[in-house]
Amino acid sequence: MKKQATIRQATSADAQSILALIKELAVFEREPDAVVLTTEDLVRDGFGEHPSFVCFVAEEDQQIVGLALGYPRYSTWKGKTMHLEDLIVQEDYRGKGIGFALYKRFIHYAHSLQVRRVEWAVLDWNQSAIDFYEQTGAAVLSDWRTAQMDEHAISTFINQYPDENI
Amino acid sequence: MKKQATIRQATSADAQSILALIKELAVFEREPDAVVLTTEDLVRDGFGEHPSFVCFVAEEDQQIVGLALGYPRYSTWKGKTMHLEDLIVQEDYRGKGIGFALYKRFIHYAHSLQVRRVEWAVLDWNQSAIDFYEQTGAAVLSDWRTAQMDEHAISTFINQYPDENI
Repeated sequence: MKKQATIRQATSADAQSILALIKELAVFEREPDAVVLTTEDLVRDGFGEHPSFVCFVAEEDQQIVGLALGYPRYSTWKGKTMHLEDLIVQEDYRGKGIGFALYKRFIHYAHSLQVRRVEWAVLDWNQSAIDFYEQTGAAVLSDWRTAQMDEHAISTFINQYPDENI
Repeated sequence: MKKQATIRQATSADAQSILALIKELAVFEREPDAVVLTTEDLVRDGFGEHPSFVCFVAEEDQQIVGLALGYPRYSTWKGKTMHLEDLIVQEDYRGKGIGFALYKRFIHYAHSLQVRRVEWAVLDWNQSAIDFYEQTGAAVLSDWRTAQMDEHAISTFINQYPDENI
Protein backbone atom coordinates (compact mmCIF):
# COMPACT_ATOMS: atom_id res chain seq x y z
CA MET A 1 0.00 0.00 0.00
CA LYS A 2 1.24 3.45 -0.93
CA LYS A 3 2.28 5.84 1.76
CA GLN A 4 -0.46 8.43 2.27
CA ALA A 5 0.28 12.13 2.31
CA THR A 6 0.12 13.68 5.77
CA ILE A 7 -2.62 16.26 6.26
CA ARG A 8 -1.91 18.89 8.89
CA GLN A 9 -2.74 22.48 9.72
CA ALA A 10 -0.35 24.91 8.02
CA THR A 11 2.15 27.08 9.86
CA SER A 12 3.78 30.33 8.79
CA ALA A 13 6.80 28.30 7.65
CA ASP A 14 4.61 26.90 4.86
CA ALA A 15 3.72 30.32 3.41
CA GLN A 16 6.11 30.13 0.46
CA SER A 17 4.89 26.66 -0.54
CA ILE A 18 1.28 27.79 -0.14
CA LEU A 19 1.87 30.75 -2.44
CA ALA A 20 3.48 28.49 -5.06
CA LEU A 21 0.35 26.29 -5.07
CA ILE A 22 -1.93 29.34 -5.29
CA LYS A 23 0.01 30.53 -8.34
CA GLU A 24 -0.23 27.07 -9.90
CA LEU A 25 -4.01 27.18 -9.50
CA ALA A 26 -4.19 30.66 -11.04
CA VAL A 27 -2.48 29.31 -14.16
CA PHE A 28 -4.98 26.44 -14.31
CA GLU A 29 -7.84 28.93 -13.95
CA ARG A 30 -6.42 30.93 -16.87
CA GLU A 31 -5.56 33.98 -14.75
CA PRO A 32 -1.78 33.66 -14.33
CA ASP A 33 -1.26 37.34 -13.51
CA ALA A 34 -4.11 37.71 -11.02
CA VAL A 35 -2.12 36.80 -7.91
CA VAL A 36 -0.86 39.97 -6.21
CA LEU A 37 -0.57 38.30 -2.80
CA THR A 38 2.93 37.92 -1.36
CA THR A 39 4.42 35.48 1.14
CA GLU A 40 4.53 38.34 3.66
CA ASP A 41 0.77 38.98 3.16
CA LEU A 42 0.05 35.30 3.78
CA VAL A 43 2.14 35.18 6.95
CA ARG A 44 0.56 38.37 8.33
CA ASP A 45 -3.02 37.50 7.37
CA GLY A 46 -3.07 33.79 8.16
CA PHE A 47 -0.81 33.22 11.11
CA GLY A 48 -1.19 36.22 13.40
CA GLU A 49 -3.46 36.78 16.36
CA HIS A 50 -6.69 37.11 14.38
CA PRO A 51 -6.12 34.98 11.28
CA SER A 52 -8.22 35.75 8.20
CA PHE A 53 -8.19 32.12 7.10
CA VAL A 54 -7.40 28.56 8.11
CA CYS A 55 -5.19 26.39 5.92
CA PHE A 56 -4.56 22.65 5.86
CA VAL A 57 -1.67 21.27 3.85
CA ALA A 58 -0.78 17.87 2.45
CA GLU A 59 2.83 16.88 2.92
CA GLU A 60 4.54 14.13 0.93
CA ASP A 61 8.22 13.56 0.10
CA GLN A 62 9.01 16.41 2.55
CA GLN A 63 7.13 18.80 0.29
CA ILE A 64 3.80 20.65 0.49
CA VAL A 65 1.86 19.13 -2.39
CA GLY A 66 -1.64 20.35 -1.68
CA LEU A 67 -3.79 22.65 0.41
CA ALA A 68 -7.31 23.43 1.51
CA LEU A 69 -7.78 27.06 2.56
CA GLY A 70 -10.95 28.66 3.87
CA TYR A 71 -12.55 31.04 6.33
CA PRO A 72 -15.85 31.66 8.12
CA ARG A 73 -18.72 33.41 6.40
CA TYR A 74 -22.19 34.35 7.60
CA SER A 75 -25.51 33.48 6.07
CA THR A 76 -28.47 35.61 7.11
CA TRP A 77 -30.59 32.51 6.53
CA LYS A 78 -28.44 29.88 8.27
CA GLY A 79 -25.99 31.71 10.54
CA LYS A 80 -22.30 30.75 10.64
CA THR A 81 -20.94 28.95 7.58
CA MET A 82 -17.48 28.01 6.28
CA HIS A 83 -16.15 28.92 2.88
CA LEU A 84 -13.60 26.75 1.09
CA GLU A 85 -11.64 29.28 -0.93
CA ASP A 86 -9.03 26.98 -2.49
CA LEU A 87 -8.52 23.25 -2.79
CA ILE A 88 -5.29 22.62 -4.67
CA VAL A 89 -3.13 19.58 -5.38
CA GLN A 90 0.15 19.97 -7.23
CA GLU A 91 -0.15 18.48 -10.70
CA ASP A 92 2.39 15.65 -10.20
CA TYR A 93 0.52 14.44 -7.12
CA ARG A 94 -3.02 14.29 -8.49
CA GLY A 95 -5.05 11.10 -8.71
CA LYS A 96 -3.76 9.78 -5.37
CA GLY A 97 -6.64 10.86 -3.14
CA ILE A 98 -4.82 13.88 -1.71
CA GLY A 99 -7.52 16.32 -2.84
CA PHE A 100 -10.17 14.16 -1.22
CA ALA A 101 -8.17 13.90 2.02
CA LEU A 102 -7.85 17.70 2.19
CA TYR A 103 -11.53 18.19 1.35
CA LYS A 104 -12.48 15.67 4.02
CA ARG A 105 -10.32 17.40 6.60
CA PHE A 106 -11.88 20.75 5.77
CA ILE A 107 -15.42 19.43 6.06
CA HIS A 108 -14.61 17.77 9.37
CA TYR A 109 -13.15 21.06 10.58
CA ALA A 110 -16.31 22.92 9.52
CA HIS A 111 -18.45 20.28 11.22
CA SER A 112 -16.46 20.68 14.43
CA LEU A 113 -17.40 24.39 14.36
CA GLN A 114 -21.07 23.41 14.02
CA VAL A 115 -21.65 25.49 10.93
CA ARG A 116 -24.87 24.94 9.04
CA ARG A 117 -23.27 25.15 5.59
CA VAL A 118 -19.96 24.76 3.78
CA GLU A 119 -19.73 26.56 0.48
CA TRP A 120 -17.28 27.33 -2.28
CA ALA A 121 -17.13 28.39 -5.92
CA VAL A 122 -16.41 26.21 -8.93
CA LEU A 123 -15.79 27.16 -12.56
CA ASP A 124 -18.67 26.06 -14.76
CA TRP A 125 -16.33 24.44 -17.31
CA ASN A 126 -14.60 22.34 -14.65
CA GLN A 127 -16.97 19.39 -15.01
CA SER A 128 -14.74 16.88 -13.21
CA ALA A 129 -14.74 19.13 -10.13
CA ILE A 130 -18.52 19.64 -10.34
CA ASP A 131 -19.04 15.86 -10.60
CA PHE A 132 -16.77 15.27 -7.61
CA TYR A 133 -18.56 17.84 -5.45
CA GLU A 134 -22.00 16.52 -6.36
CA GLN A 135 -20.92 12.95 -5.57
CA THR A 136 -19.98 14.06 -2.07
CA GLY A 137 -23.42 15.55 -1.41
CA ALA A 138 -22.89 19.18 -2.39
CA ALA A 139 -25.37 21.07 -4.54
CA VAL A 140 -24.01 23.18 -7.40
CA LEU A 141 -26.37 26.13 -7.83
CA SER A 142 -27.06 27.42 -11.29
CA ASP A 143 -28.93 30.66 -10.62
CA TRP A 144 -26.44 32.75 -8.66
CA ARG A 145 -23.81 35.00 -10.23
CA THR A 146 -20.78 36.49 -8.54
CA ALA A 147 -20.47 40.27 -8.67
CA GLN A 148 -17.11 41.90 -7.93
CA MET A 149 -15.91 45.43 -7.61
CA ASP A 150 -12.13 45.46 -7.91
CA GLU A 151 -9.67 47.92 -6.39
CA HIS A 152 -9.82 50.27 -9.38
CA ALA A 153 -13.63 50.19 -9.52
CA ILE A 154 -13.82 50.84 -5.75
CA SER A 155 -11.62 53.95 -6.11
CA THR A 156 -13.60 55.20 -9.09
CA PHE A 157 -16.86 54.72 -7.20
CA ILE A 158 -15.54 56.45 -4.07
CA ASN A 159 -14.38 59.44 -6.10
CA GLN A 160 -17.68 59.64 -7.95
CA TYR A 161 -19.77 59.30 -4.79
CA PRO A 162 -17.84 60.79 -1.89
CA ASP A 163 -19.66 60.47 1.38
CA GLU A 164 -19.04 62.98 4.10
CA ASN A 165 -20.65 60.65 6.67
CA ILE A 166 -17.89 58.05 6.62
CA MET B 1 -36.65 68.24 -1.04
CA LYS B 2 -37.61 64.93 0.57
CA LYS B 3 -36.12 63.97 3.86
CA GLN B 4 -33.40 61.38 3.33
CA ALA B 5 -33.29 58.17 5.32
CA THR B 6 -30.55 58.11 7.93
CA ILE B 7 -27.84 55.50 7.36
CA ARG B 8 -26.09 54.29 10.50
CA GLN B 9 -24.33 51.23 11.85
CA ALA B 10 -26.78 48.77 13.42
CA THR B 11 -26.92 47.97 17.13
CA SER B 12 -28.26 44.89 18.86
CA ALA B 13 -31.53 46.78 19.46
CA ASP B 14 -32.12 46.58 15.68
CA ALA B 15 -31.91 42.77 15.54
CA GLN B 16 -35.65 42.19 15.31
CA SER B 17 -36.08 44.70 12.50
CA ILE B 18 -33.05 43.25 10.71
CA LEU B 19 -34.56 39.76 10.87
CA ALA B 20 -37.87 41.04 9.49
CA LEU B 21 -36.04 42.49 6.47
CA ILE B 22 -34.05 39.27 5.98
CA LYS B 23 -37.32 37.31 5.91
CA GLU B 24 -38.81 39.77 3.43
CA LEU B 25 -35.83 39.19 1.11
CA ALA B 26 -36.19 35.40 1.43
CA VAL B 27 -39.77 35.69 0.18
CA PHE B 28 -38.59 37.80 -2.78
CA GLU B 29 -35.90 35.20 -3.54
CA ARG B 30 -38.58 32.49 -3.56
CA GLU B 31 -37.23 30.71 -0.46
CA PRO B 32 -39.66 31.81 2.27
CA ASP B 33 -38.83 28.90 4.60
CA ALA B 34 -35.06 29.06 4.29
CA VAL B 35 -34.47 31.45 7.20
CA VAL B 36 -33.67 29.48 10.35
CA LEU B 37 -31.80 32.38 11.96
CA THR B 38 -33.35 33.90 15.09
CA THR B 39 -33.09 37.33 16.69
CA GLU B 40 -30.95 35.76 19.42
CA ASP B 41 -28.54 34.35 16.81
CA LEU B 42 -28.22 37.80 15.22
CA VAL B 43 -27.53 39.51 18.55
CA ARG B 44 -24.93 36.91 19.57
CA ASP B 45 -23.21 36.71 16.18
CA GLY B 46 -23.26 40.36 15.16
CA PHE B 47 -22.93 42.43 18.28
CA GLY B 48 -20.59 40.57 20.61
CA GLU B 49 -16.83 40.86 21.09
CA HIS B 50 -15.88 39.20 17.79
CA PRO B 51 -18.76 40.01 15.45
CA SER B 52 -19.27 37.74 12.42
CA PHE B 53 -20.66 40.59 10.33
CA VAL B 54 -21.12 44.33 10.09
CA CYS B 55 -24.54 45.80 9.41
CA PHE B 56 -25.66 49.25 8.31
CA VAL B 57 -29.32 50.18 8.54
CA ALA B 58 -31.48 52.86 6.93
CA GLU B 59 -33.89 54.55 9.31
CA GLU B 60 -36.92 56.54 8.19
CA ASP B 61 -40.18 57.37 9.98
CA GLN B 62 -38.59 55.89 13.15
CA GLN B 63 -38.39 52.51 11.43
CA ILE B 64 -35.60 50.36 10.00
CA VAL B 65 -36.48 50.27 6.30
CA GLY B 66 -33.29 48.84 4.81
CA LEU B 67 -29.96 47.24 5.52
CA ALA B 68 -26.56 46.36 4.08
CA LEU B 69 -24.90 43.43 5.85
CA GLY B 70 -21.50 41.98 5.10
CA TYR B 71 -18.28 40.52 6.44
CA PRO B 72 -14.60 40.11 5.53
CA ARG B 73 -13.46 37.35 3.20
CA TYR B 74 -10.02 36.41 1.92
CA SER B 75 -8.88 36.03 -1.64
CA THR B 76 -5.71 34.03 -2.20
CA TRP B 77 -5.13 36.23 -5.22
CA LYS B 78 -5.91 39.65 -3.74
CA GLY B 79 -5.79 39.29 0.06
CA LYS B 80 -8.49 40.84 2.27
CA THR B 81 -11.84 41.49 0.62
CA MET B 82 -15.34 42.40 1.83
CA HIS B 83 -18.46 40.45 1.02
CA LEU B 84 -21.85 42.13 0.83
CA GLU B 85 -24.20 39.39 1.95
CA ASP B 86 -27.50 41.28 1.87
CA LEU B 87 -28.70 44.62 0.56
CA ILE B 88 -32.38 45.00 1.38
CA VAL B 89 -34.91 47.83 1.23
CA GLN B 90 -38.43 47.30 2.50
CA GLU B 91 -40.85 47.22 -0.40
CA ASP B 92 -42.78 50.42 0.51
CA TYR B 93 -39.54 52.39 0.64
CA ARG B 94 -38.02 51.39 -2.67
CA GLY B 95 -37.26 53.83 -5.47
CA LYS B 96 -36.11 56.57 -3.08
CA GLY B 97 -32.38 56.00 -3.26
CA ILE B 98 -32.16 54.14 0.06
CA GLY B 99 -30.61 51.03 -1.50
CA PHE B 100 -27.98 53.16 -3.20
CA ALA B 101 -27.22 55.03 0.05
CA LEU B 102 -26.69 51.70 1.87
CA TYR B 103 -24.58 50.31 -0.97
CA LYS B 104 -22.50 53.49 -1.01
CA ARG B 105 -21.97 53.30 2.73
CA PHE B 106 -20.86 49.69 2.50
CA ILE B 107 -18.37 50.39 -0.28
CA HIS B 108 -16.96 53.35 1.64
CA TYR B 109 -16.62 51.10 4.68
CA ALA B 110 -14.79 48.47 2.60
CA HIS B 111 -12.56 51.17 1.11
CA SER B 112 -11.70 52.41 4.61
CA LEU B 113 -10.47 48.88 5.40
CA GLN B 114 -8.25 49.01 2.28
CA VAL B 115 -9.63 45.80 0.82
CA ARG B 116 -8.75 45.03 -2.78
CA ARG B 117 -12.20 43.75 -3.70
CA VAL B 118 -15.85 43.94 -2.69
CA GLU B 119 -17.98 41.03 -3.82
CA TRP B 120 -21.48 39.65 -3.52
CA ALA B 121 -23.91 37.31 -5.22
CA VAL B 122 -26.84 38.18 -7.44
CA LEU B 123 -29.60 36.00 -8.84
CA ASP B 124 -29.28 35.64 -12.59
CA TRP B 125 -32.96 36.50 -13.17
CA ASN B 126 -32.70 39.73 -11.19
CA GLN B 127 -31.76 41.86 -14.20
CA SER B 128 -32.53 45.20 -12.57
CA ALA B 129 -30.03 44.38 -9.81
CA ILE B 130 -27.43 43.21 -12.34
CA ASP B 131 -27.87 46.44 -14.34
CA PHE B 132 -27.53 48.52 -11.19
CA TYR B 133 -24.34 46.76 -10.10
CA GLU B 134 -22.75 47.02 -13.52
CA GLN B 135 -23.58 50.73 -13.71
CA THR B 136 -21.65 51.27 -10.49
CA GLY B 137 -18.51 49.60 -11.85
CA ALA B 138 -18.95 46.03 -10.66
CA ALA B 139 -18.35 43.05 -12.93
CA VAL B 140 -20.93 40.27 -12.92
CA LEU B 141 -19.06 37.03 -13.62
CA SER B 142 -20.73 34.38 -15.71
CA ASP B 143 -18.40 31.40 -15.29
CA TRP B 144 -18.46 30.71 -11.55
CA ARG B 145 -21.02 28.52 -9.83
CA THR B 146 -21.74 28.33 -6.11
CA ALA B 147 -21.42 24.91 -4.50
CA GLN B 148 -23.01 24.30 -1.10
CA MET B 149 -23.04 21.45 1.33
CA ASP B 150 -25.93 21.93 3.75
CA GLU B 151 -26.22 20.73 7.34
CA HIS B 152 -27.75 17.41 6.34
CA ALA B 153 -25.16 16.76 3.62
CA ILE B 154 -22.33 17.64 6.04
CA SER B 155 -23.61 15.06 8.56
CA THR B 156 -24.04 12.42 5.88
CA PHE B 157 -20.51 13.04 4.59
CA ILE B 158 -19.01 12.95 8.11
CA ASN B 159 -20.72 9.63 8.83
CA GLN B 160 -19.63 8.17 5.53
CA TYR B 161 -16.02 9.38 5.87
CA PRO B 162 -15.14 9.51 9.56
CA ASP B 163 -11.66 10.79 10.18
CA GLU B 164 -9.80 9.69 13.28
CA ASN B 165 -7.32 12.55 12.83
CA ILE B 166 -9.78 15.31 13.63
